[in-house]
Amino acid sequence: MISYTYMTCRMGAWKAALSAATTDGHSPLRSTGQALRLSAAGMSTRFAFTVHASNGMARAGTIAMRRGEIRTPAFMPVGTAATVKAMKPQAVRASGADIILANTYHLMLRPGAERLARLGGLHRFMNWPRPILTDSGGYQVMSLAKLRRLTEEGVEFRSHLDGSRHMLTAERSIAIQRMIGADIVMAFDECPRADRPLAEIEASMELSMRWARRSRAAFDESGGEDAGAALFGIQQGALDEGLRRRSADALRAVGFDGYAIGGLAVGEGQEAMFATLDFAGCQLPAEAPRYLMGVGKPDDLVGAVGRGVDMFDCVLPTRSGRNGQAFTWGGPLNLRNARFAEDAGPLDPRCACPTCADYSRAYLHHLTKAGEMLGAMLLTEHNLAFYQQLMAAMRGAIERGIFTDWAAGFLRDYNAR
Amino acid sequence: MISYTYMTCRMGAWKAALSAATTDGHSPLRSTGQALRLSAAGMSTRFAFTVHASNGMARAGTIAMRRGEIRTPAFMPVGTAATVKAMKPQAVRASGADIILANTYHLMLRPGAERLARLGGLHRFMNWPRPILTDSGGYQVMSLAKLRRLTEEGVEFRSHLDGSRHMLTAERSIAIQRMIGADIVMAFDECPRADRPLAEIEASMELSMRWARRSRAAFDESGGEDAGAALFGIQQGALDEGLRRRSADALRAVGFDGYAIGGLAVGEGQEAMFATLDFAGCQLPAEAPRYLMGVGKPDDLVGAVGRGVDMFDCVLPTRSGRNGQAFTWGGPLNLRNARFAEDAGPLDPRCACPTCADYSRAYLHHLTKAGEMLGAMLLTEHNLAFYQQLMAAMRGAIERGIFTDWAAGFLRDYNAR
Repeated sequence: MISYTYMTCRMGAWKAALSAATTDGHSPLRSTGQALRLSAAGMSTRFAFTVHASNGMARAGTIAMRRGEIRTPAFMPVGTAATVKAMKPQAVRASGADIILANTYHLMLRPGAERLARLGGLHRFMNWPRPILTDSGGYQVMSLAKLRRLTEEGVEFRSHLDGSRHMLTAERSIAIQRMIGADIVMAFDECPRADRPLAEIEASMELSMRWARRSRAAFDESGGEDAGAALFGIQQGALDEGLRRRSADALRAVGFDGYAIGGLAVGEGQEAMFATLDFAGCQLPAEAPRYLMGVGKPDDLVGAVGRGVDMFDCVLPTRSGRNGQAFTWGGPLNLRNARFAEDAGPLDPRCACPTCADYSRAYLHHLTKAGEMLGAMLLTEHNLAFYQQLMAAMRGAIERGIFTDWAAGFLRDYNAR
Repeated sequence: MISYTYMTCRMGAWKAALSAATTDGHSPLRSTGQALRLSAAGMSTRFAFTVHASNGMARAGTIAMRRGEIRTPAFMPVGTAATVKAMKPQAVRASGADIILANTYHLMLRPGAERLARLGGLHRFMNWPRPILTDSGGYQVMSLAKLRRLTEEGVEFRSHLDGSRHMLTAERSIAIQRMIGADIVMAFDECPRADRPLAEIEASMELSMRWARRSRAAFDESGGEDAGAALFGIQQGALDEGLRRRSADALRAVGFDGYAIGGLAVGEGQEAMFATLDFAGCQLPAEAPRYLMGVGKPDDLVGAVGRGVDMFDCVLPTRSGRNGQAFTWGGPLNLRNARFAEDAGPLDPRCACPTCADYSRAYLHHLTKAGEMLGAMLLTEHNLAFYQQLMAAMRGAIERGIFTDWAAGFLRDYNAR
């Protein structure tokens, strides 16, 4: 099998190297000059994306980073406030997660970036030694904070927790993410609603591109690469192909380790999202991972992987777990439903997670009805394990060259009820 | 070392057998006729209480039951609604618990005793294969239910969940506990407030003794012993030595596998509780375990063990864990306190639990302030582990013959702040 390893250089010029894939899935670095340089310096890989196999736009690969490898397509559980809600980090890892996401907006307010830095960074604080991606805070400021004021410089706002006044700029966002100790740092961006007038979408996209350049400069000045961190840019432009093209070109000119597709999963619906991905994915560099932010439902993930997306994050499996909803190969289940009251079977007979091994639907129904914390814990654990099994199944199907057929079969079973 | 094994026969006559203790703490049964009979029938021990060592009234021992051994003095975590709140059962076991308590009142209302029986009983339902003790429902009916009506027959009440009408009698309580699959069944009793007039306390105690006789008959008729279950009686009489004596004599005349001390830990204060235990413990048979219901704080446990108590249950370690309070060898800590915001040390440097191994006080402060479920999970796990380490330390001190000195040292450290 042939695989392609892509490694990014400082300031964004790209090198691609062709090399033989190792059988254990580790990214081979022997044939690249940069790899030799890193090896000679005694350092492990900062960021290398290897594609092991592809089916059409779908592709299976690995991102090598100092804190560990990320198998792609990857799903990142959301650990908003320095915890994946209702989960111990060991259980998050056991579910199959290689990387988690944390929210800059929440962490800057509580416990605070400087405090986190004094305590040795987020990895030590929350006992998660593997890669962490932090968002830029831009999206959450606009959706959560009070009294926002948007300028060319950034966003001034008041905390939703205590009303305290804060300012987020590209420079401050990057500084916070570096203090947190993020492995993957996101450029600061603004995400308008997809249903705004096109002129407004365009102006916002242009602003995000100026912020992307400032983010790159701030990241480089902070010594981000020497610290082992990577920087991703974020494409904007809502549902418009021309704006997405201009955004992609602007990001490519700056150069990033990876490219996120922002501004989707904000209420436009699956059909519009897929239509946008049909052109957005191709506009972004093939050599770098593509990350679709905030997505999604299991069928969203399958459709997006088929359109070339490599990374995802979403609160759905964790939030649903706290609300009595379970995802299964046969579709979602609402455990509050009385029909489960005496159902002695597991949530999903095809699932290998601890919840399905040890507990019945009847018990999970009881815990959910009684509002017991253990219900949230067990359903969250199942949902995260289901999402990771889904990603593993997609990687396997791509590696076997049967992704399209696999996806059709998945959707048939998932939508059977 | 010499140890005493006590095994109860049907209908309450006592046999005691003297035998050599095995070094691994397993109860030796070789020298008892009953043990030989059980062994010949291929059955394991239903209920055998062995005292390995004693210091004054304090004693260390083992209760052997079919689902496992219970090391005494024992602390039973409370699993009210078929879950020890915020804990997986594997973690409850890993904390050192040999037995848990479940509440008849809650389970009869949700999921319902008949439903639990159809689902294979509580052990399978909640994935806890070891011994379970159920309370009788009497205490909780009086404290939680609406529109209670107390008669000689029992208590009629309305559910606090949905207002549905129910009746608890001695016979119904035993039937429910047997359907749940309890290993230790409690006699049905009434628990008046300790500050009621003495005549009222006396009448209530006499009623509870009549209910105890009915409970014994109902348990025997249900085939409780053949199913491997044990039955405990409950002494009442509030703080009055004469009433406690009459209650103990009444229970002894009926005969039970173990004897609970009820009607304490209801607001009388530690001094009055200890004063009552000073005579109540001696009134109950030395051959059977003594169980102090609903107790308590760590210093309550130490004082009660010194007064001859073998078993405890209390919501304090679990409830406190959900409220940001941790128990440590240096006294309780309130994790909400701002002084922990940058404290990188563990909750308790002397504690061997996973929370103390993996997380800082600063992180637990953050989780508690943020209302994160993981904070409740980690503090509950620590508190239960601390309680079990406390019980193990008391057992060790009794076995080494230094309980009094150990207790003085414990209280000095625990109250140092």
